[in-house]
Amino acid sequence: MNAEIPKPIEFWFSFGSPYSYFAALQIDALAARHGRRVDWRPFVLGVAFKRSGMAPLVQQPMRGEYAMKDWERLGRLHRVPYAFPSRFPIDSLAPSRMYYALEQEDAQRAHELARLFFKSYFGEDIDISDAQTAAKLGATLDLDEAWLLAAAADRVWKDALRARTDEALAKGVFGAPFVIVDGEGFWGCDRLPMVEQWLQRGGW
Amino acid sequence: MNAEIPKPIEFWFSFGSPYSYFAALQIDALAARHGRRVDWRPFVLGVAFKRSGMAPLVQQPMRGEYAMKDWERLGRLHRVPYAFPSRFPIDSLAPSRMYYALEQEDAQRAHELARLFFKSYFGEDIDISDAQTAAKLGATLDLDEAWLLAAAADRVWKDALRARTDEALAKGVFGAPFVIVDGEGFWGCDRLPMVEQWLQRGGW
Repeated sequence: MNAEIPKPIEFWFSFGSPYSYFAALQIDALAARHGRRVDWRPFVLGVAFKRSGMAPLVQQPMRGEYAMKDWERLGRLHRVPYAFPSRFPIDSLAPSRMYYALEQEDAQRAHELARLFFKSYFGEDIDISDAQTAAKLGATLDLDEAWLLAAAADRVWKDALRARTDEALAKGVFGAPFVIVDGEGFWGCDRLPMVEQWLQRGGW
Repeated sequence: MNAEIPKPIEFWFSFGSPYSYFAALQIDALAARHGRRVDWRPFVLGVAFKRSGMAPLVQQPMRGEYAMKDWERLGRLHRVPYAFPSRFPIDSLAPSRMYYALEQEDAQRAHELARLFFKSYFGEDIDISDAQTAAKLGATLDLDEAWLLAAAADRVWKDALRARTDEALAKGVFGAPFVIVDGEGFWGCDRLPMVEQWLQRGGW
């Protein structure tokens, strides 16, 4: 362990999760306020749900209906565009693989792409589960559309996403977003203020 | 509807719920900052869990373990005594019935008693599910111990608690704590800041 260089914060999320969206727009700035970088970590939420015995929120009686309302309120509260997508839930394999491919080249650009995926899906009702659509979005950031499309189908990035999902489960990640700071886990975008206090105090 | 007198905030909770405990210590002051009163509404959480298909947190894989840690952190964060009780979960029928009996006499005293129940269970590991223990706690507030004990066994307050639980379900309450402000529901002690913003803006 090197005490002088703080470890990056791990930000586990799914591109298809509304609560992940609201957290994604805040996490880099939050970390930067405390001299930290963030490792963005998309994973396959459905696998975690199976392990923890959970169902997607919108499929749960009473809680699903509540979540729909909660997401609307969070959008207004954070003053960010939000509309429940016409296709929901989606599988987020393609954008997740593209993310990991790009991250290896340039992590900051990958974060930009990730934010664009989120804003497109939850702000503009663009179906990012479609690889061609996701690659086209990348092109608006001057990324190579064909390269992104190939990444989504490449065994290397399929395996990478699977490995990250296994890693998430091994670390006790059962929902999204899930932030890990120096081994301490925080679940939910509503725990970001707690993450911030944790960073301020260096634990407590 | 009388526009001049704001309706009380409904605070639905269970005496056996750690998240309810943390909310209970804040809710009256929060409401008072916005000129509101609070109707405290204990209900039988297990009935709501059955309806919504949920299990108690501590019985859920991964999430249970996380919740144990989350409660510890909330205790430290809010600087209130907290230790996971040696008996958990408990049924909270006796303290809930005592609450409703006293509320009809004096709501403020009933809130005091409710806070004492919470602090005793989560701060001092006192088993408040036992009616005699709960009544003895009431006596430390100069309440009539025998009267409280009788209330816990009285059909009137058994029925009252059942009716409140039905009311909770009818209003979409599926977990605890659950705050309702002018018909708008907020689930979880982590939504209290959102409740406060809602009150400040008069909706949004």
